[in-house]
Amino acid sequence: DSDGYGHPGPTHEAIQTLLKILTDEGVEGYWFGANTSVIEKTIKPAIVGQDPFMREKIWQDLMERQRLNLSTLADNILAPIDLALWDLAGRALNQPVYKILGGYRSIVPAYASTMCGDDLQNGLATPQDYAVFAEWAMRRGYQGFKLHTWQPPYAGAPNPKRDIEACAFVRDAVGPDIPCMLDPYHYYDREAALYLAKQLEDLNYYWMEEPMDEHSMSSYIWLCQQTSLPICGPETCEGKMHVRAEWIKHGACDISRAGVSDVGGLTPLMKIVHL
Amino acid sequence: DSDGYGHPGPTHEAIQTLLKILTDEGVEGYWFGANTSVIEKTIKPAIVGQDPFMREKIWQDLMERQRLNLSTLADNILAPIDLALWDLAGRALNQPVYKILGGYRSIVPAYASTMCGDDLQNGLATPQDYAVFAEWAMRRGYQGFKLHTWQPPYAGAPNPKRDIEACAFVRDAVGPDIPCMLDPYHYYDREAALYLAKQLEDLNYYWMEEPMDEHSMSSYIWLCQQTSLPICGPETCEGKMHVRAEWIKHGACDISRAGVSDVGGLTPLMKIVHL
Repeated sequence: DSDGYGHPGPTHEAIQTLLKILTDEGVEGYWFGANTSVIEKTIKPAIVGQDPFMREKIWQDLMERQRLNLSTLADNILAPIDLALWDLAGRALNQPVYKILGGYRSIVPAYASTMCGDDLQNGLATPQDYAVFAEWAMRRGYQGFKLHTWQPPYAGAPNPKRDIEACAFVRDAVGPDIPCMLDPYHYYDREAALYLAKQLEDLNYYWMEEPMDEHSMSSYIWLCQQTSLPICGPETCEGKMHVRAEWIKHGACDISRAGVSDVGGLTPLMKIVHL
Repeated sequence: DSDGYGHPGPTHEAIQTLLKILTDEGVEGYWFGANTSVIEKTIKPAIVGQDPFMREKIWQDLMERQRLNLSTLADNILAPIDLALWDLAGRALNQPVYKILGGYRSIVPAYASTMCGDDLQNGLATPQDYAVFAEWAMRRGYQGFKLHTWQPPYAGAPNPKRDIEACAFVRDAVGPDIPCMLDPYHYYDREAALYLAKQLEDLNYYWMEEPMDEHSMSSYIWLCQQTSLPICGPETCEGKMHVRAEWIKHGACDISRAGVSDVGGLTPLMKIVHL
């Protein structure tokens, strides 16, 4: 839409790029979502001829080039390169990447997560709709449930009271023992964020993500001090492991959060896991 | 000696254990320094039959068993197991371990380091002896130099003024541009540690390690606040990545320090590197 959000729509064809890294020994590595012009103009000249197992050096070199070039070399633009190199290593060594890293488990728990609230019939137009969806997810066997609530341009959004109404319907639907999480509208102010946190404490929710602008770490430190509800973050904040280390050090979150694409690949993700 | 320190002595034969981990696919992994009785009684029953690539799981399982068993399962007792598993992975995949991790460089800088001070002719009996040794190391091509000074039971040890005298002779010998470091007697009190730090500031030293008991993290926080000299630590303190994270978080050191054996292997070492 005009605010940049995606909504449910009719089925349609979509095009996805695929990055392919070739080696002179015939092994290849792949990852989705490459930015073609950046790959051609910047990445190819930087990495062709290098040892593909020197992932740390390649990643550090590209990170160095990000300075003053974040408009073209954002972390999510660089992530496919690192991920294709990990994929290449897995193919070259005939091992899944998790075993190259040193495996811990081969099965991980998953929770069901909604899209953002909408105004569609049989969609997520009302708090009750979330409960219907949660019941469906429980029947599918999910062991946890996360809501994304309403954001502009939908009528009446954002609205913390309506968010909590949806959370309460979900809690009723899944019963007291299923972990439930809320990811609300991300530009709420401190007052709204604290209202949500206090209500979610009462509903025995497991965590809340990004209710406020994450560039104000101080707001998150303040929120963590006011509530026993675990705060999970940062989600969209730039700065890879550096910013997550600051959040942990300053008590701005209870659970650290990192997406492999948002932070620039598996190499920086492991640095964050180890924080 | 009677205080548990090693000293220079005549050449003699020594026996070293070698841990060997076998797999049903014929690949083996090796590491030095295994404790035979712990391996037989505890480790073998715990790991035989497991996938040797599940290093993280094996290390986490053994870490769990350390609780209330640190007398037999100290980190330096467990380190050879983790290191033999990394060695095994390298042999199985026909790659050096640094490339499995994701390589950054294939050459690392090294500094020369002395043994502890002694009372031997042509040894390290006087401050001037350190300068002679430093000159020899510079001729060998080393780009940095670290002193370990006198500890009991040597006459007159410990003595911070004598330590600094040795540091000053070394600075004169190597010139102003070579990074120099001091690892003094590790049971100095705060007053002695601060004296050393202030003198080393004047001598333009690069860092100081472990002048006080490291179980008093508060003493190190205090020391870091009083001096601009970088403090490197902890060295011998138990607690792997957890304790090092606390030291960093609380400003108890300027440079974090971890030995692969002291912290229990390469798996926990990487967690520390990423802090």
